[in-house]
Amino acid sequence: MRLTQGKWWIALMLLLHTQCFASELLTQKQRFDIPEFTTFGGKTIKQLQVGYESYGTLNADKSNVVLITHFFSGSSHAAGKYQPEDEAPGYWDAIIGPGKAIDTNKFFVLSVDSLVNFNAHDPNVITTGPATINPDTGKPWGLAFPVVTIRDFVNVQKALLESLGITKLYAVAGPSMGSMQALEWATTYPDWVPRMISVIGAGQSDAWTVAALEQWGLPIKLDPNWNNGDYYSSEPPLAGLTTGLMLLTQQALYPDFINSSNPQHQSLEEGPLADIHQSHQVVNWLRGMAQARAKVTDANHMLYLIRASQLFLAGQDKPLAEAMQQVKAKTLFIPASHDLLLMPYLAEQPHKALLAAGKNSTLVPIVGPMGHLDGVANINQVAEQIQRFLMQD
Amino acid sequence: MRLTQGKWWIALMLLLHTQCFASELLTQKQRFDIPEFTTFGGKTIKQLQVGYESYGTLNADKSNVVLITHFFSGSSHAAGKYQPEDEAPGYWDAIIGPGKAIDTNKFFVLSVDSLVNFNAHDPNVITTGPATINPDTGKPWGLAFPVVTIRDFVNVQKALLESLGITKLYAVAGPSMGSMQALEWATTYPDWVPRMISVIGAGQSDAWTVAALEQWGLPIKLDPNWNNGDYYSSEPPLAGLTTGLMLLTQQALYPDFINSSNPQHQSLEEGPLADIHQSHQVVNWLRGMAQARAKVTDANHMLYLIRASQLFLAGQDKPLAEAMQQVKAKTLFIPASHDLLLMPYLAEQPHKALLAAGKNSTLVPIVGPMGHLDGVANINQVAEQIQRFLMQD
Repeated sequence: MRLTQGKWWIALMLLLHTQCFASELLTQKQRFDIPEFTTFGGKTIKQLQVGYESYGTLNADKSNVVLITHFFSGSSHAAGKYQPEDEAPGYWDAIIGPGKAIDTNKFFVLSVDSLVNFNAHDPNVITTGPATINPDTGKPWGLAFPVVTIRDFVNVQKALLESLGITKLYAVAGPSMGSMQALEWATTYPDWVPRMISVIGAGQSDAWTVAALEQWGLPIKLDPNWNNGDYYSSEPPLAGLTTGLMLLTQQALYPDFINSSNPQHQSLEEGPLADIHQSHQVVNWLRGMAQARAKVTDANHMLYLIRASQLFLAGQDKPLAEAMQQVKAKTLFIPASHDLLLMPYLAEQPHKALLAAGKNSTLVPIVGPMGHLDGVANINQVAEQIQRFLMQD
Repeated sequence: MRLTQGKWWIALMLLLHTQCFASELLTQKQRFDIPEFTTFGGKTIKQLQVGYESYGTLNADKSNVVLITHFFSGSSHAAGKYQPEDEAPGYWDAIIGPGKAIDTNKFFVLSVDSLVNFNAHDPNVITTGPATINPDTGKPWGLAFPVVTIRDFVNVQKALLESLGITKLYAVAGPSMGSMQALEWATTYPDWVPRMISVIGAGQSDAWTVAALEQWGLPIKLDPNWNNGDYYSSEPPLAGLTTGLMLLTQQALYPDFINSSNPQHQSLEEGPLADIHQSHQVVNWLRGMAQARAKVTDANHMLYLIRASQLFLAGQDKPLAEAMQQVKAKTLFIPASHDLLLMPYLAEQPHKALLAAGKNSTLVPIVGPMGHLDGVANINQVAEQIQRFLMQD
């Protein structure tokens, strides 16, 4: 069975019993090439490639573009299906489509696979990162790949937009690491961005978040198969990657969800009581999801995504409050009340800084049982607010 | 420099700038032996040894015993100093001592090193676990050591109390894993326990907590030096242990504390931007504390403590609500409002079950910047409530 990005979501969604898997949209992956790309850190990436998807139609004056920026473990598959028989549509299908909050009858919705994408081995993802062949050496980059930042993700998207003759967005919206890109867009290219939606987001990664993100990558480095990032002609560090993904998965959730999926025991579990080598049922459940996910993920890509997220500071060159003065967009912040990964205070920081700078900013929380993932799985809760926000001048 | 348990606390306490390191108490470690101990799981441990400390004087009718049960990474060093020049006193020195909330002028306060104690290589800790020589083989037990439970910790304490001619406690109190022991005492030996104080505690480890605890041990198993628990004649798995301790430390804290100790950056940190091998300052800070701590800790002991904590269900043989009907103690629950490790709902469960069963139970939260560790570092906040509770009939 081919394990694609969708599988993991399906496992979660089926447990949640709330998601409708029907989608009226069909989409396909396209490819964008940049012969030579210079990173924010001043390094060069040759023959850069990324995948992208679009939903809806670009209008004549190219004024109806909504850019969707994806989360850490996501891809450009934001909505629709590749084939009608796909098990799950893109992650925000609940709000992207004909007649939906981000209405593809009105908007040309575009989404781009990030650099160093998490789903490096998903056949539906096109990305450039440590697992990619470095044209100068003919071998995978490994850790010789330059550190990339949220600004670099944005600059790749901007290059694609410009190649399509687009010079301004109608709006940019994204969850989690996608919110970082959305705010980076609004801060660094304010003339491009009249409307920005940050879901389960932040204005910068504070020390707490930098440390929390680091924890996901440390197990990878303990796996002897990691071999300092040089494993492309040997066994990949799946055990370390699986451990990192177990942590990522739990931190993206909330007790209510994990407990409702794994009822409390009424007596001690026999296996773990009898034998230190055995695990509790909930551990096997979490490990099973992480193991399936590890097969489409590249460990080095995860380390680079962690680094890009750790380095995040909107604007990248000044304190957040100053950077927010540059923003011209109306902004909508949508934290998840039970978020343990990017807690609501992280969305409140840029929101308050924008208000202090006299900008038009709104904050609407999602309340749900899933924690961080409510920003993806329960985004339908705020569909009306998103629709209204997009209809404002 | 000898690294003892105190060092880690000192690092945290100095950062917090709130703890007074003076103590009027001097104490010493004593040893208790059990020739043959049968675990809850039915296995035998021969020549069991644990350390204990006491503060105050046992009265003539042995009716003034307050048992203090320690947290996951703690030991029986609950109060006082071994030498006047020690840098830090025991962890709850703020509330244990002459004239303090747990007044050693009135009470005989006793505390016992747990089985499989975290601080196996601290010269001030006496414990029995995987790092101990198995008298049947003449070699360290390693993973042949039986799984032990919170009940076993309690039964060792009970054997010690009985050896001192004590047949009833005045009260039992403990933070975190110590709260598990306190409630296990009140549930399984209700005639012994007229008063119980659970600080940053729980009534059982739910699926969320079982999974969260597992995450601390997974890095150990990835370290090749762990060698399936058989490392006592080779290099110990310090890298894996350090990674597990970094996670434990962060989960026991809260953003406010880590951020105030590591101010937000105003631009991107140069090292991590230039080089994927470099770490952010907060990561180095966290790693430094964990590395120091790893030197007195045994990796297998940590795995066994994780298992004991995962298996926790007060009473160990029936649903929590039923078990609470057995309790005869007045109970006081003190969750920390910002606790991310054992969130307040976990203390509310037994508290509400006790009220529903018609028992006398009170809940008073601590509000602080440290999260879970507020139950140790900021226990002085609830000193009055503890003192009043102990004075009630």
